[in-house]
Amino acid sequence: MVSIGIDIGGTKMSAGVVTPDGEIVERCLKPSPVRSARQAEDAIVEVVADLSRRHQVGAVGVGAAGWVDSQQTTIRFSPHLAWRDEPIALRLAQRVDRPVIVDNDANAAAWAEFNFGAGRGAQTMIMLTLGTGIGGAMVTDGRLFRGAFGMAGEWGHSTVVPGGQDCPCGNQGCWEQYASGHALARQASALAASGDPAAAGLADLPQPLTGAAVGRLARAGDPAAVGLVAELGGWLGLGLANLAAGLDPEVFVIGGGLAQLGDLLLEPARVAYRRHLSGRGHRPWAAVRQAGFGPDAGLVGAAALARRAVRRRSGQAGELAELWSCEVG
Amino acid sequence: MVSIGIDIGGTKMSAGVVTPDGEIVERCLKPSPVRSARQAEDAIVEVVADLSRRHQVGAVGVGAAGWVDSQQTTIRFSPHLAWRDEPIALRLAQRVDRPVIVDNDANAAAWAEFNFGAGRGAQTMIMLTLGTGIGGAMVTDGRLFRGAFGMAGEWGHSTVVPGGQDCPCGNQGCWEQYASGHALARQASALAASGDPAAAGLADLPQPLTGAAVGRLARAGDPAAVGLVAELGGWLGLGLANLAAGLDPEVFVIGGGLAQLGDLLLEPARVAYRRHLSGRGHRPWAAVRQAGFGPDAGLVGAAALARRAVRRRSGQAGELAELWSCEVG
Repeated sequence: MVSIGIDIGGTKMSAGVVTPDGEIVERCLKPSPVRSARQAEDAIVEVVADLSRRHQVGAVGVGAAGWVDSQQTTIRFSPHLAWRDEPIALRLAQRVDRPVIVDNDANAAAWAEFNFGAGRGAQTMIMLTLGTGIGGAMVTDGRLFRGAFGMAGEWGHSTVVPGGQDCPCGNQGCWEQYASGHALARQASALAASGDPAAAGLADLPQPLTGAAVGRLARAGDPAAVGLVAELGGWLGLGLANLAAGLDPEVFVIGGGLAQLGDLLLEPARVAYRRHLSGRGHRPWAAVRQAGFGPDAGLVGAAALARRAVRRRSGQAGELAELWSCEVG
Repeated sequence: MVSIGIDIGGTKMSAGVVTPDGEIVERCLKPSPVRSARQAEDAIVEVVADLSRRHQVGAVGVGAAGWVDSQQTTIRFSPHLAWRDEPIALRLAQRVDRPVIVDNDANAAAWAEFNFGAGRGAQTMIMLTLGTGIGGAMVTDGRLFRGAFGMAGEWGHSTVVPGGQDCPCGNQGCWEQYASGHALARQASALAASGDPAAAGLADLPQPLTGAAVGRLARAGDPAAVGLVAELGGWLGLGLANLAAGLDPEVFVIGGGLAQLGDLLLEPARVAYRRHLSGRGHRPWAAVRQAGFGPDAGLVGAAALARRAVRRRSGQAGELAELWSCEVG
């Protein structure tokens, strides 16, 4: 039996029918941003109904940016949507007549990479999704690490430069301000505005610059863009060394849009990581790998988490009855 | 049956006979520093033999600064001692004719606080031991978090100020350079040397200044020393906010010598932690507590870890025979 994974991003929603092996057999995309919680729920119900006509769907998993409780039922806070302490999994389960779980999008991506991708079988794996911001998640001993209140993984908001760049989170100098698509766009804009002839390629791009556009220019070989990506890689590597000092993972998996830059980003990151890792020489290096899934990691992982939740809960029939008003299968 | 815990510090070694409830019934101190691995092993054998004459000792746990493999048998690297990849637990077990485990000293302290002290029963607890440097450990879901290679917890060597103070680890700007006894002594020395009249109390202390001496002056109410401790607390709080963003613990437990400063240190730390925590308002605050055990946390925890290892392994007789050449009990 297949499950459906849904990834709710800031600018689009994607859904996919996923096999137990992590293969996507059908995929749907809703390219417009989803603003209200009601709109998002209606869109989910619609796509699940549609996909269920063609597939035997066991469960539905939803990945979204934000904080999700560790029971995978409630979104406490989401930056893109007006969800605040919404028991969305229970409400959706009633409407789609199937078990539904929600989880943080980086948790979902990490689960996909751990089960089917670049972190397969690692004892401890840390996933970082580099998009506009930085998402993070850790899988250790075969389980997602959630912390005491389900909010672990927000390494993007650890301070790496006291008194540094303002962050929308209210702090200054967050890692996310130095190693994300937003940071790349900001640094590129400053360079383009400087009139430096070396930045002509950047100045010729449509303004305002986006991280994705600067990344494309870097892949095309523009030296200024390549330099900015390398600088960003340096900040990425510094943060990886910090994470390795505290958490000693076996592998780092780098996903999200920026990961498509491959070694343009990852090689400078590895150099900085090796330079900054405490205790180098006395310990193994954690590998720094590009994610195996591209933008699909979130939906594949959400589907796999939903499948797992059903497997677990069907072993606990009493709990299942309390959690859902529907039958599995 | 009791177990023996041994804490090997940079300047002294302490041993204690510990009950299953974490009570110390007898304690021994060896005040001289232990330089060679052989010397340390002989000292351990001696104290275990002595204590075993008066107590029914089941197992021995040794806590030491440095990296210990996750089987708790081998010290890969220790800063205070010439141990390099030494299978010390196996060798000691043969000599004391009892099961022996070794573990990182911060892991041992955290295990004591989790079982009997300020972190009792927390879902996720992070312990920081503030001495000359910063030791760290995490207990989550009732287990010590060790990472993939047993080297987790070295948050003291995460970079908080890129290009900042040199650290003996080879990096710059490590947290330990801003929130440890060493940092307190360094800042106090600079202030005392400045000739600032407000620093007269510091200048009157025996030079070179130590963190402990500055701490005593702060407890006596000297405003300059109090100010330095508060500044250190600010750096502590910044680092706690970083840890909370990524790991979302229920409680932070602050131990080690500096923790004896109590709220002189912890209140400024709490203020900075609340100021810097990402997502404040959307999440519970992790408590920031002073450790329940003073300098005894390491030996109490080492003893408890040894007891647990015996309990576990006696359920796995085959493995036990491989690990030790001796009998339990």
